[in-house]
This record gives sequence, C-alpha cells and structure tokens, in this order.
Amino acid sequence: MCIPLSKQIAMNVENTEVQMRKGILEFCVLHIISRGEVYTSDLIEELTSARIAVVEGTLYPLLNRLRKAELLDYKWIESASGPPRKYYLLTEKGRSFLESLNKTWNDLLSSTNTIISKK
Amino acid sequence: MCIPLSKQIAMNVENTEVQMRKGILEFCVLHIISRGEVYTSDLIEELTSARIAVVEGTLYPLLNRLRKAELLDYKWIESASGPPRKYYLLTEKGRSFLESLNKTWNDLLSSTNTIISKK
Repeated sequence: MCIPLSKQIAMNVENTEVQMRKGILEFCVLHIISRGEVYTSDLIEELTSARIAVVEGTLYPLLNRLRKAELLDYKWIESASGPPRKYYLLTEKGRSFLESLNKTWNDLLSSTNTIISKK
Repeated sequence: MCIPLSKQIAMNVENTEVQMRKGILEFCVLHIISRGEVYTSDLIEELTSARIAVVEGTLYPLLNRLRKAELLDYKWIESASGPPRKYYLLTEKGRSFLESLNKTWNDLLSSTNTIISKK
C-alpha cells in the first residue's frame, strides 16, 4: 500500500500530539483509579470534565493493557439497577508504578518549563 | 519470535514513560530551534542542562523526521575550526505547528493538573 507524501507528512505531525496525549492519558487514568475503585463511566466522566476527550473504544484497550501488566485489577459489584458492574482498582504494583510516573511527570514538567520559558 | 510474558509486562510499563517523553522531546527541540539557528551540539547541550537525557542516535532521526515533515530546514555554515556545520532552523510551517503544540501542551497541563491535584 502506498501512502501519498502529503498524507505521510500530516501523519508525522499528528504523531507528536498523539504521543504527548497517550502517555498523559494513562497517567491520568492511573491517578483516578488510585483514589478508589471506579466504574468505566466514572472514569470517562472525570476525564471529560477535565477536558480530556476519550471514548470507550480508547479506554477499554488501555484498561485491558494496564490489567495485563498487573497494574490494575477489577471486581464485579452488583448494581441495584441492572447487571453487575466491573470496578477497577490499583494493584500494589500499580501503586509503585504510579509513584514512579509521578516522578517522571514532575521531572518532565520541570525540564519542559526550563526550555519553553526561555525566550 | 516469542517474547516471555514477564518481558511483555516490562515493555508495557516502560511504554507509558517512553510515550510521555517522546512527544515532549519533540516539543522541546522545536522550541529551542524556534529561538534561532542551532547546531546539533547546541541542542544536546541545552536539553542536557534542562535534564533531558538525549544522545545523537535519538536526536538525528528526530531532526530528520521533522525536516521531512517540512517543519525544519537546515543550512551549512562554515566553521573557523573544522568542516562546515549543519544549522537547523524552523520553517513557516514549523512555526505554525509549534504554536499548535504550545496550545496542546497548555491544555494537557491544565487537564492533568485538574486530575492529579484531586485527592
């Protein structure tokens, strides 16, 4: 399959923003879950209210990946109105990972500020 | 080729940090070049002094990719001590892209702060 050059350029350009967003989305998801068990729609609601646009189609594979990496676990909780719901929680390993991500985030923030504040 | 599960988990975990760093590295590189023509070792020096560890092997492909996307251009400048050096500069397209990245960065920063400051 041949992708035209103009399309390739657009893809390269989008890629920077996509990478910035992807890493940060995972960080935010782990943070929200670290505060207590959450249901997927709680997650989407909080991300949306913080102006991070995310759809279920993005969130499910991400949650699944974090679970396979043993950073998350889930349990089924019965619901008064409808079928049982899957609630996510952080594992011990997830907590250590989040601590390390917090440090990475603070370091990146401080480095980026040093560079972008310079005229 | 079969990658053992423990290795796959480690790869997943590293990936979040790698993605965070990658997008931000490109943003910082574009920022430094936006202030005026720079030579690769000026770039490495400024990134290192802002505590962003980067080696030539990472930087060259990145610069090449940004150039192919027409965000950067370069010119050869004669050096008093040795061969001519390649200096990078931002194109008009690069300037518009950087403006858009600045906005993305500020939005992500504000979203992330909303989430991680909540206890």
